[in-house]
Amino acid sequence: MDAHLVEVTRGGRVESSHMGSAVVVDADGVILFRAGDIEAPVFTRSAVKALLALPLVETGAADRLGLSDAELALACASHVGEPVHARTAASMLRKAGQDPDCLECGIHWPTSRAGQRALFEAGQEPSALHNNCSGKHAGFVCLACDNGDTLLGYVRPEHAVMRQVTEAAAHMTGARMDENNRAIDGCSIPTYAIPLRALALGFARFGSGTGQHPDRAEAATRLRRAVAANPVLVAGEGRFDTRLMQAFGLSVFSKMGAEGIHVVSLPEQGLGIAVKCADGAARAAEVAIAALVARHVDATPAQHAVLDACMRPVLRNWNGIEVGALRPTSGFVHGKRT
Amino acid sequence: MDAHLVEVTRGGRVESSHMGSAVVVDADGVILFRAGDIEAPVFTRSAVKALLALPLVETGAADRLGLSDAELALACASHVGEPVHARTAASMLRKAGQDPDCLECGIHWPTSRAGQRALFEAGQEPSALHNNCSGKHAGFVCLACDNGDTLLGYVRPEHAVMRQVTEAAAHMTGARMDENNRAIDGCSIPTYAIPLRALALGFARFGSGTGQHPDRAEAATRLRRAVAANPVLVAGEGRFDTRLMQAFGLSVFSKMGAEGIHVVSLPEQGLGIAVKCADGAARAAEVAIAALVARHVDATPAQHAVLDACMRPVLRNWNGIEVGALRPTSGFVHGKRT
Repeated sequence: MDAHLVEVTRGGRVESSHMGSAVVVDADGVILFRAGDIEAPVFTRSAVKALLALPLVETGAADRLGLSDAELALACASHVGEPVHARTAASMLRKAGQDPDCLECGIHWPTSRAGQRALFEAGQEPSALHNNCSGKHAGFVCLACDNGDTLLGYVRPEHAVMRQVTEAAAHMTGARMDENNRAIDGCSIPTYAIPLRALALGFARFGSGTGQHPDRAEAATRLRRAVAANPVLVAGEGRFDTRLMQAFGLSVFSKMGAEGIHVVSLPEQGLGIAVKCADGAARAAEVAIAALVARHVDATPAQHAVLDACMRPVLRNWNGIEVGALRPTSGFVHGKRT
Repeated sequence: MDAHLVEVTRGGRVESSHMGSAVVVDADGVILFRAGDIEAPVFTRSAVKALLALPLVETGAADRLGLSDAELALACASHVGEPVHARTAASMLRKAGQDPDCLECGIHWPTSRAGQRALFEAGQEPSALHNNCSGKHAGFVCLACDNGDTLLGYVRPEHAVMRQVTEAAAHMTGARMDENNRAIDGCSIPTYAIPLRALALGFARFGSGTGQHPDRAEAATRLRRAVAANPVLVAGEGRFDTRLMQAFGLSVFSKMGAEGIHVVSLPEQGLGIAVKCADGAARAAEVAIAALVARHVDATPAQHAVLDACMRPVLRNWNGIEVGALRPTSGFVHGKRT
């Protein structure tokens, strides 16, 4: 059963509302907050990217290829296709001795206006480098080249690289990821439906290092540092994850995924947070995530202001007139810790 | 209480789902189908545009200014800002002796790639002509000029034009529209929260002419003909409303609004249909509308194929691989007629 998470108001009335589930868990699996059904399987989509990037670092491949922190951040990214994102993905491929033709993520237009404008003004069409997942795919290519695997078909579940990264995500979350809970993601790699609680647990462990091989814990720390130092690369200027990490640095790791899935890791508190908006709306998952971060993080007044803006975004119309807002429901925001 | 309307699948599993309400009613107010709470007030947003356009036609203003059918279709439109949409809005304003500076809808980028490309390639920024509501606003300007009203502030509830068009919508739907259920729409005109049943009733009457002054019934017929002859102007190439009306001509009038509101008028059956997706998702409102149209319309095999594609759209990823689909829930599609 889903819980009532977020309301959208207009002129003081509720115009729309969002249901879903949410959980906060520590690295030992102790649940601190729950709303809705946190055991029902949900597809992890792009929320899990940082876990898939662990093998690239922990095997030493990233070091052998000389990947920068910006490049590691892009390996964890769902980006908006601006020139800096495309350039960074191209640079990763060059370090692996490859070119963009090897990418199997497919092509779509940049989602940011600046990214679109750059292509239009250059008279160019988008390439796979502009796909929001190009950094993750460039990371897979780097890992495959370092392994000595053939590249072709690296998105298939049976490919060595896909088995390697899936095993890392399955180990971190403690969830089964096999042909019984598998589907195909937007960029053609497999995505697995796992309990929301398990996804949150994976990100509690990603922040705390609890129960992991030292190489993995170190890899997680390095990825978190890379992302914290490059919050624009992991999403894009003005986007939720970028704003949160610009405000909190290493204290908050935040990552969205398609269809309203969103994760946060709070390393200082040793907590993982996961939200699934049942209808797939990112706007509601963001509000719910911001509300849960506000509840569990130690924030300065400036950080609180950012959280509050993310938690209660004002809706303005095309003339800049305030017409409504999003807000967590009172039941959700005042829900008891379990 | 909302009903379960639509499911989104991935790899055979339900990934997301949408709740909401839906109603089919005849012009006498007899309810043929209901799901969810059809008496709860919902903002009508752009779904009501065709009712707001009635005074422009029934007063004779459209004829005195020599508005074409294409221009009347644009007065009912939420368009994607392609050159044809902007040109048609500009032409309406010229016929009223005005220029685009008088529009009070605000400015946003075209939502279609072709509309964006046209501006980028011309090195231009968007104007109010590219606002999806520019045709509706040009219609208000035409009406105000024909009335001899001052233009400034025509979007305000107390302006003569806004009172005139609101009264038409209130009369058609039988719903109260005043300061007690008012908010501000995306384009700055008032929008009113009325029962979904009343909205559907307005569109049953829009198709049937039942209980209306002959001038109004004739105006409604003229607007429906104008839209049926110009389905690309009322939305845009490839969009749901355009596809449905390209397939059905005068037999189906269909209009979306923001936040998951959608109406249909079936003049041959004398029925009005309205759907509100509770979370505001257009994708789900479209599936539910297509399912209800399929249930009540007489369709040829070619028309059935279009309805089926709209009712069960396949989701493909960036490589064109089929990854999932949308579908009405079995409860919704097999729901009993009341």
